[in-house]
Amino acid sequence: MSVTAPAGFEAAGVAAGLKSTGKPDVAVVVNRGPRKVGAAVFTGNRAKANPIIWSQQAVADRVVEAVVLNSGGANCFTGSFGFQTTHQTAEKAAELLGVSAGDVLICSTGLIGTGDETFRARVLAGTEQAIAELSADGGDDAAHAIMTTDTVAKTAVISRDGWTIGGMAKGAGMLAPGLATMLVVITTDAVLEPLQADEALRRATGKTFDRLDSDGCMSTNDQVTLLANGASEVAPDLDDFAAALRELCQELAVKLQGDAEGASHDITIEVRQAVSEQDAVEVGRSVARNNLFKAAIFGNDPNWGRVLAAIGTTNAQFDPYDVDVWMNGVRVCTEGGPDRPREEVDLTPRATHVVIDLKSGEAAATVLTNDLTHDYVHENSAYAS
Amino acid sequence: MSVTAPAGFEAAGVAAGLKSTGKPDVAVVVNRGPRKVGAAVFTGNRAKANPIIWSQQAVADRVVEAVVLNSGGANCFTGSFGFQTTHQTAEKAAELLGVSAGDVLICSTGLIGTGDETFRARVLAGTEQAIAELSADGGDDAAHAIMTTDTVAKTAVISRDGWTIGGMAKGAGMLAPGLATMLVVITTDAVLEPLQADEALRRATGKTFDRLDSDGCMSTNDQVTLLANGASEVAPDLDDFAAALRELCQELAVKLQGDAEGASHDITIEVRQAVSEQDAVEVGRSVARNNLFKAAIFGNDPNWGRVLAAIGTTNAQFDPYDVDVWMNGVRVCTEGGPDRPREEVDLTPRATHVVIDLKSGEAAATVLTNDLTHDYVHENSAYAS
Repeated sequence: MSVTAPAGFEAAGVAAGLKSTGKPDVAVVVNRGPRKVGAAVFTGNRAKANPIIWSQQAVADRVVEAVVLNSGGANCFTGSFGFQTTHQTAEKAAELLGVSAGDVLICSTGLIGTGDETFRARVLAGTEQAIAELSADGGDDAAHAIMTTDTVAKTAVISRDGWTIGGMAKGAGMLAPGLATMLVVITTDAVLEPLQADEALRRATGKTFDRLDSDGCMSTNDQVTLLANGASEVAPDLDDFAAALRELCQELAVKLQGDAEGASHDITIEVRQAVSEQDAVEVGRSVARNNLFKAAIFGNDPNWGRVLAAIGTTNAQFDPYDVDVWMNGVRVCTEGGPDRPREEVDLTPRATHVVIDLKSGEAAATVLTNDLTHDYVHENSAYAS
Repeated sequence: MSVTAPAGFEAAGVAAGLKSTGKPDVAVVVNRGPRKVGAAVFTGNRAKANPIIWSQQAVADRVVEAVVLNSGGANCFTGSFGFQTTHQTAEKAAELLGVSAGDVLICSTGLIGTGDETFRARVLAGTEQAIAELSADGGDDAAHAIMTTDTVAKTAVISRDGWTIGGMAKGAGMLAPGLATMLVVITTDAVLEPLQADEALRRATGKTFDRLDSDGCMSTNDQVTLLANGASEVAPDLDDFAAALRELCQELAVKLQGDAEGASHDITIEVRQAVSEQDAVEVGRSVARNNLFKAAIFGNDPNWGRVLAAIGTTNAQFDPYDVDVWMNGVRVCTEGGPDRPREEVDLTPRATHVVIDLKSGEAAATVLTNDLTHDYVHENSAYAS
């Protein structure tokens, strides 16, 4: 059910010819009210696609009526023509929905530099078609229409006492944090004030999507949007809502990790006993971004030396010669030297668990990543063709 | 001739059984004087191998008699036993050469965590054998003995008015800057004061090895050492010497790039019109470390969008929507949009030239890197086995 699981939302996904495969490529999600609360977080990349530039302005008043999303073209670095395409898409949707264009967010994903007149015509036609097909059962169709190299549609639903959160996500590469790291739309029928929606979204994404770092490459098009309409007439405690939202975001983040391009291992890097949470994240991310470590995991090689070499490049507070490293439950390194024989570590399962104990403080954090594989190289060397 | 090209140096390389292949794995370079000036730069990684910890202390007085190098084991994270191995190696060399152990530098390269009693016994025996075989023609043997996954020995010689600089380098992976990025020994018979040697070495490495970033992974064992003995009795102007040293370091850096593990392209990233040289390096390095860009180049795909996405993550001063990008002479992006068709770009040659014009200032810098290939993944997923 995805984004249409909560009451008062409609969605659709249609094929508009943007993808050469003919698969669905334009999605629309509409909030039917009564409230039209919206919040969004965006890529931290300074190179922002036109839809990001548009949506950052449109969400500023925290009123969002609808989100139009397309795959098959990022509309990034397409100049003023590309920005006009985004603007016209919002105006088209607004006209058909009877709302203000300034309350329509736009998200695009696909190849950078793609956005010619054909692209524009197809996005506009697709938007019209999707709006004509809007339905309270359209969540799954929408989730399929935003897929690029994703192999499965990614959705999640959480229900609590009288209110529900639904979400859909796309993302299989260029996954690295910077406020947001992919296209995600989350809907809820909980009653939320605009500032509450914003706070809950930032709290949730900061601990979930921001800690997914599949390949260290930050996208130009990332956007995570939360729409809240209060249709349930239940106003949850903000902490309760934020906790449920974080749970949903984490579920989607794990699904993104599990579908990362070419990956053969989903690696959970758990950093313990750091002086600060920031230190723990920095240490975890340094390992997540180390190609030699990632290639070793692909080869089922518990090469803990590469973990130590990676964390030694950080500014985090710890003694590099008093760190414990576990791989899938086996302590392979302790006190600056080898511990258990590497032969004891079984890295054949897809789920890989690395624990790094810094023995320096009481903070902890977990970063999710993937291994570096032949298939990752293959998929990303042939993307444009 | 490598390190024995300048007058007054002897070297040797022998097989001590550290490599399972039986190839040479221990090298010694000795300065026969009259001066015994030494300078060295080391990895910026906080996780330092035992030879680094030893050599940093040994070079502090700027007197160096000899360097002992081994491949086949990094002696990193091998605890106090590993440090004793380094210490004993220096003492063994010092005893045989009739010098102080505190004037002998040690360099090791190979797998982290390797350094047991067998390793120690073989390093000590190899050191003894190499010293017995020292000769003024031994430079090439030494250059071969420090190879790991290198496919060719890397040496360079530059001669000026009466004085010569010779060098050898090893490095084929884990190449990322941090003062130094590999094992390099450079010798000269020029007359240099200790502080001059130090300054010239830092100036040269800062513009050469520090701007080689093959895979973003900083080693635990990197060391670049300069030995100067004044045997030519010529004292060059410091700027002249520094320029020649930089030329030699650049030649070795290019050879390292050309032999990087699994690479199929040598990529020169030239950043122009930056506000500062620091900005230019940051921008160049962001591209050099972007796996999606590197995979695209492997696929001969001029995916300039990935260049823009990479540089957008930096803090350098420039307008992301007013940047020109050239690939192998074709301007593919200008003023925030596409320029010439990507079909015009021929990326089939190994040498790849990317120019990024930030249009913001007068500074420039060039960063060297490689593409991300199947073979890189293969070599680095099977390294420990």
